[in-house]
Amino acid sequence: MPPSLSTLQKALKRKKLDAVLITQPENRRYLSGYTATDSSISESSGVLLIPAQGSPFLLTDSRFDIHAREEANGFEVALYPKGLHALLKNLLPRLGIKRLGFESHYVLHSTADKMTRVLGKKNVELVPLTGLIEKMRIRKTSEEIEKIEKSVLLNEQVFQEVYRQLKPGMTEVEVALHIETVMRLKGAERPSFDTIVAAGPNSALPHAVPTSRPLQENEPIVIDMGLILDGYCSDMTRTVVLGTPDNKTRTLFRLVRKAQKEGMAAIKAGVIARDVDRAARQVIEKAGYGDRFGHGLGHGVGIAVHEPPSLGKRSRKKLKEGMVVTVEPGIYLPGWGGIRLENMVEVQTGGCRIFNRDTTFLDI
Amino acid sequence: MPPSLSTLQKALKRKKLDAVLITQPENRRYLSGYTATDSSISESSGVLLIPAQGSPFLLTDSRFDIHAREEANGFEVALYPKGLHALLKNLLPRLGIKRLGFESHYVLHSTADKMTRVLGKKNVELVPLTGLIEKMRIRKTSEEIEKIEKSVLLNEQVFQEVYRQLKPGMTEVEVALHIETVMRLKGAERPSFDTIVAAGPNSALPHAVPTSRPLQENEPIVIDMGLILDGYCSDMTRTVVLGTPDNKTRTLFRLVRKAQKEGMAAIKAGVIARDVDRAARQVIEKAGYGDRFGHGLGHGVGIAVHEPPSLGKRSRKKLKEGMVVTVEPGIYLPGWGGIRLENMVEVQTGGCRIFNRDTTFLDI
Repeated sequence: MPPSLSTLQKALKRKKLDAVLITQPENRRYLSGYTATDSSISESSGVLLIPAQGSPFLLTDSRFDIHAREEANGFEVALYPKGLHALLKNLLPRLGIKRLGFESHYVLHSTADKMTRVLGKKNVELVPLTGLIEKMRIRKTSEEIEKIEKSVLLNEQVFQEVYRQLKPGMTEVEVALHIETVMRLKGAERPSFDTIVAAGPNSALPHAVPTSRPLQENEPIVIDMGLILDGYCSDMTRTVVLGTPDNKTRTLFRLVRKAQKEGMAAIKAGVIARDVDRAARQVIEKAGYGDRFGHGLGHGVGIAVHEPPSLGKRSRKKLKEGMVVTVEPGIYLPGWGGIRLENMVEVQTGGCRIFNRDTTFLDI
Repeated sequence: MPPSLSTLQKALKRKKLDAVLITQPENRRYLSGYTATDSSISESSGVLLIPAQGSPFLLTDSRFDIHAREEANGFEVALYPKGLHALLKNLLPRLGIKRLGFESHYVLHSTADKMTRVLGKKNVELVPLTGLIEKMRIRKTSEEIEKIEKSVLLNEQVFQEVYRQLKPGMTEVEVALHIETVMRLKGAERPSFDTIVAAGPNSALPHAVPTSRPLQENEPIVIDMGLILDGYCSDMTRTVVLGTPDNKTRTLFRLVRKAQKEGMAAIKAGVIARDVDRAARQVIEKAGYGDRFGHGLGHGVGIAVHEPPSLGKRSRKKLKEGMVVTVEPGIYLPGWGGIRLENMVEVQTGGCRIFNRDTTFLDI
């Protein structure tokens, strides 16, 4: 049994739960190795039932049977031809499960209602939980760190290949699609989020969606991209210029890069997350652009591309060894454009280790 | 005010609700025209608050402000810098809203819990609803039918372009990526689902995920693809062969095509959905392949690619004018491969109108 499962079973015993139902897809993958994704919260490709002792179950439907058996080592696969709730109604009494935890943050209100009705309040007490598995996921094992590093390095390879091919006249959409195609051809499972390519004034939007606007010379081009490799996400932003950056671009670029370096330098185990945000933010504030950096400095990355801890202005989370976070300051000037730089780092005892090798940003 | 909104307001009055909160993204788009998508159920790009009388609201955060004002005609846009629940706590008393419906099938259990706590049970009664807007969406207006037809025709154009380029040796993944790239270059918002390209034995899986297996001559290649254009989905499956199909392929192909024709011929307003499934299924059963057609005959399509009505074995839904459904029988032989053909049709008084023009299937 993987260490994560025995940790979870101990937690269940402490909470006096007979079992827990895992519906959140990343948590399901984390605990079982089962890689299926869900097309939406109401179209699940399976659920884990983990008793406080004994073998865990993967409950799914016949479409996923073979896939589930191949991947979920140590799990007993049970199918639900008549739906999950009908299966649970049979299975729970057989396993003596009376107090059942469920992921309140990944079960619909209507589903919880139906489950309560089908199982019967007298037979099974449903206990809402939030963040139980997410808390376990926040510090990465060395195997996970290795996978994250590979994901970051592949993402950089994709960037470098596409970067060499960038030319004025290509549209933002074309570049974004090309990036996502190269990702998959190089073996990524898929992009970890919709690729952002935002040039000129469009780059002033932190969450820009690629448009049909052609790239031009001498304007900032923000590329924010990530992929999933072996289940783990990468996330990286580069700002590049075709042709010669003007003085304003150079100045802002160096400022953002300085903020990023200060942020990374502030990271080590024991530090409070908002103090890392502060270290980077004050560089930008001192230069008079404080109100042009409207988002947090970074976020955790792992099986999900956005996960705890947040490196935000108000985050009181204490950083610990093995956490993985992004460091991504930015300056956004409406009408002109924006600059953002994003690396991923591992929190270590005395500092941080930067996963990124890419030095494209030094071109400016 | 669009007709859908006044219909909804009448329904609210009948249910003695002061307002309803719309969280489901397709319902949000249907009622407001606001096109933003949600990256997940816990990362919303906005919520509608529709009172039983008076102007409707679109509640969102500052990132989506401009976008929301441009698109949601007739909606008052209000921002929630401190989160949705804090805004509702202020707004609801001002509007005199005491009985508030919410979409139980698109609100997390934990969110409903928090909303109840923040608003206070004594101040606001939260009433779970399911399917209220989905029921309105099931029959399409003539404007919607027009958009769906354009989506189908663009999807066919993409297929025809890619079909001409298919060659033995291209992998399933390459073909799928190429299809999705051509979709976006031709102006689709995005694919309506992950494109399926499944060749040879892989085509025996109805929900196959494209692999790195190269296409070969003389084997069935199932391509199931759809796109979103102006908010409306298309969904089409073709089975093609590079080179010469053998006798088995020809026989099965003709059988599936015959089942599809019988299914389409059975569709008209007033018919029960399962009888349409029956009409197609019995063609396949009579030929001895009944147990090799393991899914329902079709499903509704509109703003969502899968929506009511289902044309399944057990569906008792009565078909009505203006419903739009797929007709997609298939035969799947493990180890050998599969054949599936899928068209989209509009239910009319005396029969159905087939949206598809493409006749690629006649090649076999």
